[in-house]
Amino acid sequence: MRIPILKLQNYLLVSIQVELDDQTAIEFQEDLLNKIHETGATGVVVDLTSVEIIESFIAKVLGDVVSMAELMGAKVVLTGIQPAVSMTLIDLGIHLKNVKTALDLEQGLIKLKQELEEK
Amino acid sequence: MRIPILKLQNYLLVSIQVELDDQTAIEFQEDLLNKIHETGATGVVVDLTSVEIIESFIAKVLGDVVSMAELMGAKVVLTGIQPAVSMTLIDLGIHLKNVKTALDLEQGLIKLKQELEEK
Repeated sequence: MRIPILKLQNYLLVSIQVELDDQTAIEFQEDLLNKIHETGATGVVVDLTSVEIIESFIAKVLGDVVSMAELMGAKVVLTGIQPAVSMTLIDLGIHLKNVKTALDLEQGLIKLKQELEEK
Repeated sequence: MRIPILKLQNYLLVSIQVELDDQTAIEFQEDLLNKIHETGATGVVVDLTSVEIIESFIAKVLGDVVSMAELMGAKVVLTGIQPAVSMTLIDLGIHLKNVKTALDLEQGLIKLKQELEEK
């Protein structure tokens, strides 16, 4: 099953509510980039509230998809990163330096609007 | 895999992007009602844009979950109902008479806001 990507105005919303396996993560990467292309979305919020652990391959795919989306011109905000997930990301050297983060989906959307209006 | 339910302000957003089998539909019904209870959501938008066909059991579950959610005090808007799906629903006598519908997720949220403000 693929991770649903919702379109709301110029934004895409994704809530990852399964433990991601390699295949699902790769499909998600493809689907998100295609959807950005199709819809011309200017921003993406990826909510990770339900992700409790993350392993290295998935973390890398996630870091990559953020960079790829930004290359395509869409701003990405990650929300709901849990303690264990943030530890794994930093341990793996995935600092997501240019990535905005927020507490939850709602805050993420607010942050995205602010970011895009500043441009 | 369960269907993700996103919370945005007082609303829940669901985009069904898989062909629903019986098990998934039942789990969705449970999950949605639990989430309404947990979050105290006042409105729900269920987007069916990606659902191309629907069979009788699933249609019944969907009709039921709308009635159940309304009983719990949450307004439901269904969006993106495709021609074949609407035909199946009517053929099965599921008229969803008190249910608001809209073209897409965005319109659904607007309709929900209107409905709830009218109260």
